Amino acid sequence: MLPQPHLDAASAVPLYRQLYGHFSELIQSGRLAKGDRLPPTRELAGALGLNRTTVSAAYELLESGGWITGQVGRGSFVAGRAAEGGAFGWDQWLEGAAGMAPPAAAPLGRDSISFATSRPSEQLFPLGALRASCQEVLARADLSHILQLGSPSGYEPLRRYLLDAARAENLAAPDDDVIITNGCQQSLDLIGRVLLRPGDKVVVEDPVYPGLKSLFLEAGAQLVGVPVGAAGMEVDALEAVLGRERPRLIVVTSNFQNPTGATLPVAARAALLRAAQAAGVPLVENDIYGDLRYRGVHLPPIKQPGDGGHVILLRSFSKVSFPGLRVGWVLGPRALTARLAQSKQLADLHTDQLSQAVLLRFAESGRMAAHRARVLKAGGERLAAVLAACDRHLPAGSRITRPQGGMNLWARLPEPLDAGEMLARAHRENVSYLPGKYFAVSRLDPGTLRLSFAGLAPEEIRKGVATLGRIFANELERTRAQTAAEPAPAMV
Amino acid sequence: MLPQPHLDAASAVPLYRQLYGHFSELIQSGRLAKGDRLPPTRELAGALGLNRTTVSAAYELLESGGWITGQVGRGSFVAGRAAEGGAFGWDQWLEGAAGMAPPAAAPLGRDSISFATSRPSEQLFPLGALRASCQEVLARADLSHILQLGSPSGYEPLRRYLLDAARAENLAAPDDDVIITNGCQQSLDLIGRVLLRPGDKVVVEDPVYPGLKSLFLEAGAQLVGVPVGAAGMEVDALEAVLGRERPRLIVVTSNFQNPTGATLPVAARAALLRAAQAAGVPLVENDIYGDLRYRGVHLPPIKQPGDGGHVILLRSFSKVSFPGLRVGWVLGPRALTARLAQSKQLADLHTDQLSQAVLLRFAESGRMAAHRARVLKAGGERLAAVLAACDRHLPAGSRITRPQGGMNLWARLPEPLDAGEMLARAHRENVSYLPGKYFAVSRLDPGTLRLSFAGLAPEEIRKGVATLGRIFANELERTRAQTAAEPAPAMV
Repeated sequence: MLPQPHLDAASAVPLYRQLYGHFSELIQSGRLAKGDRLPPTRELAGALGLNRTTVSAAYELLESGGWITGQVGRGSFVAGRAAEGGAFGWDQWLEGAAGMAPPAAAPLGRDSISFATSRPSEQLFPLGALRASCQEVLARADLSHILQLGSPSGYEPLRRYLLDAARAENLAAPDDDVIITNGCQQSLDLIGRVLLRPGDKVVVEDPVYPGLKSLFLEAGAQLVGVPVGAAGMEVDALEAVLGRERPRLIVVTSNFQNPTGATLPVAARAALLRAAQAAGVPLVENDIYGDLRYRGVHLPPIKQPGDGGHVILLRSFSKVSFPGLRVGWVLGPRALTARLAQSKQLADLHTDQLSQAVLLRFAESGRMAAHRARVLKAGGERLAAVLAACDRHLPAGSRITRPQGGMNLWARLPEPLDAGEMLARAHRENVSYLPGKYFAVSRLDPGTLRLSFAGLAPEEIRKGVATLGRIFANELERTRAQTAAEPAPAMV
Repeated sequence: MLPQPHLDAASAVPLYRQLYGHFSELIQSGRLAKGDRLPPTRELAGALGLNRTTVSAAYELLESGGWITGQVGRGSFVAGRAAEGGAFGWDQWLEGAAGMAPPAAAPLGRDSISFATSRPSEQLFPLGALRASCQEVLARADLSHILQLGSPSGYEPLRRYLLDAARAENLAAPDDDVIITNGCQQSLDLIGRVLLRPGDKVVVEDPVYPGLKSLFLEAGAQLVGVPVGAAGMEVDALEAVLGRERPRLIVVTSNFQNPTGATLPVAARAALLRAAQAAGVPLVENDIYGDLRYRGVHLPPIKQPGDGGHVILLRSFSKVSFPGLRVGWVLGPRALTARLAQSKQLADLHTDQLSQAVLLRFAESGRMAAHRARVLKAGGERLAAVLAACDRHLPAGSRITRPQGGMNLWARLPEPLDAGEMLARAHRENVSYLPGKYFAVSRLDPGTLRLSFAGLAPEEIRKGVATLGRIFANELERTRAQTAAEPAPAMV
């Protein structure tokens, strides 16, 4: 039984177009399948109280659109979802083309608890402050200028604000400049476009977040993973890699690495910089989580005026304000930022100016600092909740990282547990996370998983970790029972 | 004589930081050069009425930042703009790297008249309608959702709106889908990322706009130019190219091509599609100017449901609304748009959601249609003005295209005039345009230039073209006088 069309005689859209839309959606959605017969025009017109020419016009449009075929004397039949005859072979044309799929979000129910996405909580968004910042931008005398085509380097007042802030923080060398991007992901993309050629080697953390892996693989680069321990990228291992390989780039996260939550100690920062300098390889410092320290003391970035231009610092508004507004930036030597601006112009001309202007107001009005204070308080509670819940609920023998900020925690379950295999069970109980396999560069540890805790309230965290702990413990019990029941291996 | 610092004792920024900012800017701007001596701390403190420790703290910060070096007993000296010792060799590292510079905007004075940019007029921006659309978005109950991380395919309500509109216009085949991008430039970029490998051939119009040329060259593609005549891309020439080459892509503009303003007649559209289908090559239809028809009748796009999935349609809000809000879209077979969404996620996660939501309100409220009516009226006047002014002021023997819409007109000056050579003279008289060389793919005609007229008021157009006409006529007279004065070539 097909649904009745909702036709609106008062609409500006003619009735035959509305009817056309109704049928094309039924075909699109698969509710009308290839070969299905449409009601005769006279019958449908009668049933809907329409003029028969209205129905005929809709059918003609469907036929010219390839949705249906008319067969004389027999009626109109659904032509199937693919265009017939001479259809272009996209699958073949796209074969071997780039485009790596990062893991898709899990299809969970309404009351689900997802530890799968490293993003801020919507509940904490300061909507009043955002509205006020917007209003102030809309009231500006130079609003037209904001709405006009802009500069590939970014909205100049925001660029100037960020450069001044970097100078005040004593990060910027005299020859440094800022270019604004659509967030950290585009910063990495532009750096890749400018610096990487197929076959080039890039040193990355192992594990590392999938968006970075896929991006550099799409560019044809070869990833060289350096293990991340409790204290971030392991400097000895990096030095060994640099002695062996000749990479074009090192990408490292100084604070609350994604996925492990690890932070580089001060001495390791200095050692990493020395290693990059000695090898003559530029170092990208990804610092999008640095503002989210809930405990402990702030550590100075690797980027500093005396780094000889080796370090490129990436930061973003997305983690402390609104990720739907895509604004991040790169601080680095002007020789590089000028080239990034050229690539930025080719990529998308420039970053959206309305959001740049709104975020500038949000920041310079002090509203961002006030919001950040609230985020730090909530983040600290969430961090405490996830640490306590893991300690309490994860099976004995589990190990977790103990970050002091950021959004992510990394867990390693006791053997022989496989976090990837147990995900389907977690989904059935409306809880999600990302198994370690999505983050692995060259060391695949099936027992690992990432828990992104910052977007969830403490009670959700407690409930979700309790559920996971139960699933993991049950599975552990089952496999141990199985192992115990198996006969001892024959002595041959 | 160095400028006095503007210090504000009431500011939240400490005085030593303000002083540090003052000096770092002087060094940055070159007003203090390498080797210059800074005033002694005691002297400066006295002159500014500051505590000496404030000045010392600023100097220490400058020194730790690499801006100055202190020499015991001699004072503090500017260290030069580049970091000393062990500086990373960016020029060498970037050598051979991609990044093509499109033509930079000319540095003109305040009352300048620039025909150099293909963009709408700021004076016509409907600020009230934009403010109202923003307010309505800010008042939405689901505002948090708009500010949260979104989908790589675009803000779902906008995506649905655009797909419905494409269906209502009878453009979309059952298997077609829409993906939202940061404007047409990113649509082309994503298509290039997914389809092009270094060495691949792309058929483009010749002349074509520089952003497209540079983009595909950056991707390592080989451009094959097909001449654009008064009726758009020449179909015979395309067929010859397709018979000879095996391109991965054809990119064509159906309406008011940039730079020529040419529009493909209906028969040529059908012939282009047949040629692409026969060759089995996908065709990208760039239609960002199609909504700007000031005269004549609307022509149906090449994209149609019965095209067998060969055509990819690019459209954008930028030319009819606000280019500073970066939102465009691709309509094409789902097999392709799904891959574009993967690449989009790697490029920048997704398009800014605030602007997507605002433009959706602008469109569905009917405000965009009302604005477009005003733009069409103004555009018609501007088009009439530029055609009349060219007829009146360009030297005899000049030829111009006669577009019926869009933003650009293409002129060819009589020989031996060189539009590139005369640009500096035009800039001295505060008028700008883009010479043909920026648009040439393989046919360089030095007598050609693009006049972008849509962003200028009719009186500016008349004044600017009159100035250009005078410059061109003077140069023509000068070269002809010179030729007449030269001795006849010897008969050997």
